[in-house]
Amino acid sequence: MGLDYRVSCCPDGLMTDRRRDVAVLDCTIRDGGCTNAWQFPEDLVASTFEGLLGAGVDIMEIGYFTSAHARGEHDGPWRNVPEELLRRVARESDMRLSVMADMGRLDIEDLRPAEDSLIDVLRIATYAHDVPDAVTLAHQAIELGYEVHLNVMAVTRNTPQEVDAFLARLRDSQVAAVSIVDSFGAMYPHHLRYLVRKYKNWLRPDQLVGAHLHNNQQTAFANAIAAIDEGVDIIDATVYGMGRGAGNCPLELLLMYLDDPRHDVRPVLDLIPRYAPLKDTLRWGYSAPYGITGWLNQHPRTAIARMASDLRNEARSFYEELAEHRENTPHLPLTEP
Amino acid sequence: MGLDYRVSCCPDGLMTDRRRDVAVLDCTIRDGGCTNAWQFPEDLVASTFEGLLGAGVDIMEIGYFTSAHARGEHDGPWRNVPEELLRRVARESDMRLSVMADMGRLDIEDLRPAEDSLIDVLRIATYAHDVPDAVTLAHQAIELGYEVHLNVMAVTRNTPQEVDAFLARLRDSQVAAVSIVDSFGAMYPHHLRYLVRKYKNWLRPDQLVGAHLHNNQQTAFANAIAAIDEGVDIIDATVYGMGRGAGNCPLELLLMYLDDPRHDVRPVLDLIPRYAPLKDTLRWGYSAPYGITGWLNQHPRTAIARMASDLRNEARSFYEELAEHRENTPHLPLTEP
Repeated sequence: MGLDYRVSCCPDGLMTDRRRDVAVLDCTIRDGGCTNAWQFPEDLVASTFEGLLGAGVDIMEIGYFTSAHARGEHDGPWRNVPEELLRRVARESDMRLSVMADMGRLDIEDLRPAEDSLIDVLRIATYAHDVPDAVTLAHQAIELGYEVHLNVMAVTRNTPQEVDAFLARLRDSQVAAVSIVDSFGAMYPHHLRYLVRKYKNWLRPDQLVGAHLHNNQQTAFANAIAAIDEGVDIIDATVYGMGRGAGNCPLELLLMYLDDPRHDVRPVLDLIPRYAPLKDTLRWGYSAPYGITGWLNQHPRTAIARMASDLRNEARSFYEELAEHRENTPHLPLTEP
Repeated sequence: MGLDYRVSCCPDGLMTDRRRDVAVLDCTIRDGGCTNAWQFPEDLVASTFEGLLGAGVDIMEIGYFTSAHARGEHDGPWRNVPEELLRRVARESDMRLSVMADMGRLDIEDLRPAEDSLIDVLRIATYAHDVPDAVTLAHQAIELGYEVHLNVMAVTRNTPQEVDAFLARLRDSQVAAVSIVDSFGAMYPHHLRYLVRKYKNWLRPDQLVGAHLHNNQQTAFANAIAAIDEGVDIIDATVYGMGRGAGNCPLELLLMYLDDPRHDVRPVLDLIPRYAPLKDTLRWGYSAPYGITGWLNQHPRTAIARMASDLRNEARSFYEELAEHRENTPHLPLTEP
């Protein structure tokens, strides 16, 4: 830190005049919360805020906004972050704060004006077929003062024509950023290369492209590298890869790879003693069922249920149950042959 | 199997007349043995042989050949596979069998003629500076009837000129294949692209190029994909990614990705109930210390020791101890700027 990142010294002594301009979004609390029903202790979230701020992370996604009708009875406070709680763990800083809203789970009446909240960015999670309604919600949130990003989920299930159609719609919207979302961990690096180019070609130059990647086939970090090589603007990551099922792109690997003086991996490494014990009980990370649903381009819910059962290691029967229907499954239709 | 793999039906119904011609080498017993001192029960090795054979794996690496002076007192039988043991767990089949020999740890007098052994392939593990002596050993083994492959380890610590030099030497040898070995898990996919091209450019057309990849930064499988895209001939993998430290490229992910009718992932999935419980105690897989040594392009021994200590989760102090010397470390010198 303290260095001007546009003139910096590489580890091998070469002088560079420009680093990649990639923003890092940490979604440990929001997406990692899928593993513990958003039941993080307040002091852990406060430590995470300070750690991410110290690490030079650009955006911290600190939970969801979820209207009462859509909350589960066991959901913790980070499923619908109360403003007073937010102000106990975070403050105005150089790091921006975001929350996510799922389409259909946030009523616009429940969203306070941005000037009354520490939240800067609202990320709306939607499927392709809901993009028109998501744009309506986005424009309402923009009226309230938020910057709005759209995460179009499960894009591996869309045809190229469907992707073209929602990108054309979003190009004519006020949405500030659109994320490529590998909900099922089905993507290989070449899919990121294809999609980052497609998204950038369709969207306006002032709209950013992000990538949110799951690790079902152990490709999340390598997919992030491919996206970065293609000029992606925002990469999502989580501390120690925390996330549903196989988890996400690990923030510590991403920051070391970027090797950018704007970032400092050490405060993230300071968080690992807090998160690693959670992994022992919440058990995110690669297992064979996640690899199988990822490869089959299916939602990981069956794999998550399998891992919670006594049959977690019985990989063949799990594969055969799912692969039986494989011919009916659109297998990565997004990629032209 | 029963299908002719040159005219086959893809899952999406497309007819292709040619699949990639990638051979798969499983090294679960040999490299996975680094986690348990090669103490696999005989019936597990026998089941692994049958499973890999059923899966259409091309080569099974079933242990080491190690002369008595180089064996550890706790090393199990797969550290120096006795022929009579080998014949109890394996047989002549369409799957070839290999063992590895470390340079300096196998005296040629201890190597029986190939016609007296089930072993077809001897893979010699060497560092770049020992390549001339490794070629001498290789030629002696070839005289005894073996096909010999060379695994030049830790190539991430070599300069491009050093790589050129050993490839020039190997081009003029009788070595049948040369593997790109990412001993430290330091490589990203672009390193594989660079090295597969370099190795193929230097070697004769009749010499094969392999890739042996470690998962310290969760890139082993994605690195395999990059190597395959560049035309690599042999990919090493292990069941469930078993291997020292962060482990290897998982065989089940590789076979699903290749999606080649020559292979059948199901017999490998049948082995997972045998291997997954070992992972609970032997603990291979990603952890922050492995990511740190991988990124720093250092041998994982410090990370393995760290993971065996009470400080396993104290990632920052581990990083600081190693990164202190970072400026003295050749950081991936193999890649020209």
